[in-house]
Amino acid sequence: MTSAGDGLPALMSELRAAVDRALDARMPAETAPPAGLHRAMRYSVFAGGKRIRPILCLLSAEAAGGDRGAAMAPAMALELLHTYTLIHDDLPSMDNDDLRRGRPTAHRVFGEANAILSGDALLTLAFELLAEAPAPPPHPSGALSLELARAAGSRGVAGGQFEDLAAEAQSGVAPERLERIHRWKTASLIAAACRMGAIAAGAPPESVAILGGYGEAVGLAFQIADDILNAVSSPEQLGKAVGSDARRGKATYVALFGIEASRERARTLVAEAAALLKGLSGPTAPLRELAHFIVERDR
Amino acid sequence: MTSAGDGLPALMSELRAAVDRALDARMPAETAPPAGLHRAMRYSVFAGGKRIRPILCLLSAEAAGGDRGAAMAPAMALELLHTYTLIHDDLPSMDNDDLRRGRPTAHRVFGEANAILSGDALLTLAFELLAEAPAPPPHPSGALSLELARAAGSRGVAGGQFEDLAAEAQSGVAPERLERIHRWKTASLIAAACRMGAIAAGAPPESVAILGGYGEAVGLAFQIADDILNAVSSPEQLGKAVGSDARRGKATYVALFGIEASRERARTLVAEAAALLKGLSGPTAPLRELAHFIVERDR
Repeated sequence: MTSAGDGLPALMSELRAAVDRALDARMPAETAPPAGLHRAMRYSVFAGGKRIRPILCLLSAEAAGGDRGAAMAPAMALELLHTYTLIHDDLPSMDNDDLRRGRPTAHRVFGEANAILSGDALLTLAFELLAEAPAPPPHPSGALSLELARAAGSRGVAGGQFEDLAAEAQSGVAPERLERIHRWKTASLIAAACRMGAIAAGAPPESVAILGGYGEAVGLAFQIADDILNAVSSPEQLGKAVGSDARRGKATYVALFGIEASRERARTLVAEAAALLKGLSGPTAPLRELAHFIVERDR
Repeated sequence: MTSAGDGLPALMSELRAAVDRALDARMPAETAPPAGLHRAMRYSVFAGGKRIRPILCLLSAEAAGGDRGAAMAPAMALELLHTYTLIHDDLPSMDNDDLRRGRPTAHRVFGEANAILSGDALLTLAFELLAEAPAPPPHPSGALSLELARAAGSRGVAGGQFEDLAAEAQSGVAPERLERIHRWKTASLIAAACRMGAIAAGAPPESVAILGGYGEAVGLAFQIADDILNAVSSPEQLGKAVGSDARRGKATYVALFGIEASRERARTLVAEAAALLKGLSGPTAPLRELAHFIVERDR
């Protein structure tokens, strides 16, 4: 594998390719019945995502003193789960988006019912992969599944999306409420990605906690950066509709605090995240660089 | 606990109450944030379901020579998962049903987006419960999760619903295709319920296989009985719309073979299921009676 010395972009594209190969090998083939459903699942999974969550998981395993390879199953599960949340968030009854990563959203291509089912099946497949990969000692065997379920459930991604939709229906959201939405909707899964990497590496609980703290801060910064991109990018750059948050009156950092204060907050979070990494035994340079990339990215 | 000698109805209502108490204690409270989402989850879980799958799971643990109590976690997970499938199946883009168990469906009460999210969160919670309950030897620790994920995924319940919707759009479905839909959509989860009970009891693989065979046959019989009820019941009796299958041109046993041949096929399956039970070490009378109840029930 390429070392971190070759720079973050090369490492990210190497890890992204490794995750894609593993997903391609593990997911049901497009021709396997029910072919239409498997086609829909693959359409959304292989839509050009950046694979941020799996990459964080793999790099966290290494930062915790373990081997990247040990974290491939949770890395895949994280991306399957993330993809399901995108499919369901895009639905007409939710954010009603037509474009995602530059391509028509799943419900525009396969119809609403099949999009919902493809999301359901991806969520289920994520837990199937984890059921095949028990956590190594000192962790309980179900630790990886437990992390993903808690991060994704009613007090995680699903709860965050619920609160986000509820906030849209109101005018004016308090800053604490906005931060809770961000924590649930975005930071919980990114923190879980980092914790799962450490768990899969058999790292001690203190390392899991450190990486969880790193992931929580990076996750909040990631969401703020997303809000900024939605406000200032072009559709070509982002591969999806822009300015949609403002039109919808969606609760965002940018709406509450403006662009500059949001940028400042994201940078502070990244610095906090980077500082936490000092407590780990493995190589942490890639995670430090990745935290910066996440707030400075342009798509 | 009541013994099987008191008759199946008393045993079923005792087990149903035990499952309901356990679910009530384990699910997030209605007042816990996000309260609206937790309210929606509880609305659908506590809607008067018969708890057939959890009951099959508990009785299978006992039939395999183990203790019912050991199977409570998978029993709960099965009901959470089953409830999610009902919520999503009822959605406007799927079966578009307004009534379920005599009450308005989740999307009629909470709106479509929140109904989808409550189903997502219930599916996720099912795997959270199983992550906390590793399978005992001789089974791999993730065996319960694996059973549920396979039964629910693209080659299980989600795939069955996908094929069911696809078949609706066509006229004339071959018998083999109909049976595959039934196996994926209904029998897979009922077979998993029985297998999971045996696994949770630490039963040997042969007992797991026997109970899986029993569950598969009972599951097919259950679906045929459902089709018959949809064709001949009153809405008051069933707590949901009737005759809807025929109006929709839905693929059913009744549509293909008529009522009498369907009844006959269900009874044959139940006899096959009952014969399999002879290979088990624990008490099997309740499972034998339950198989009969499932095809003879009137709602």
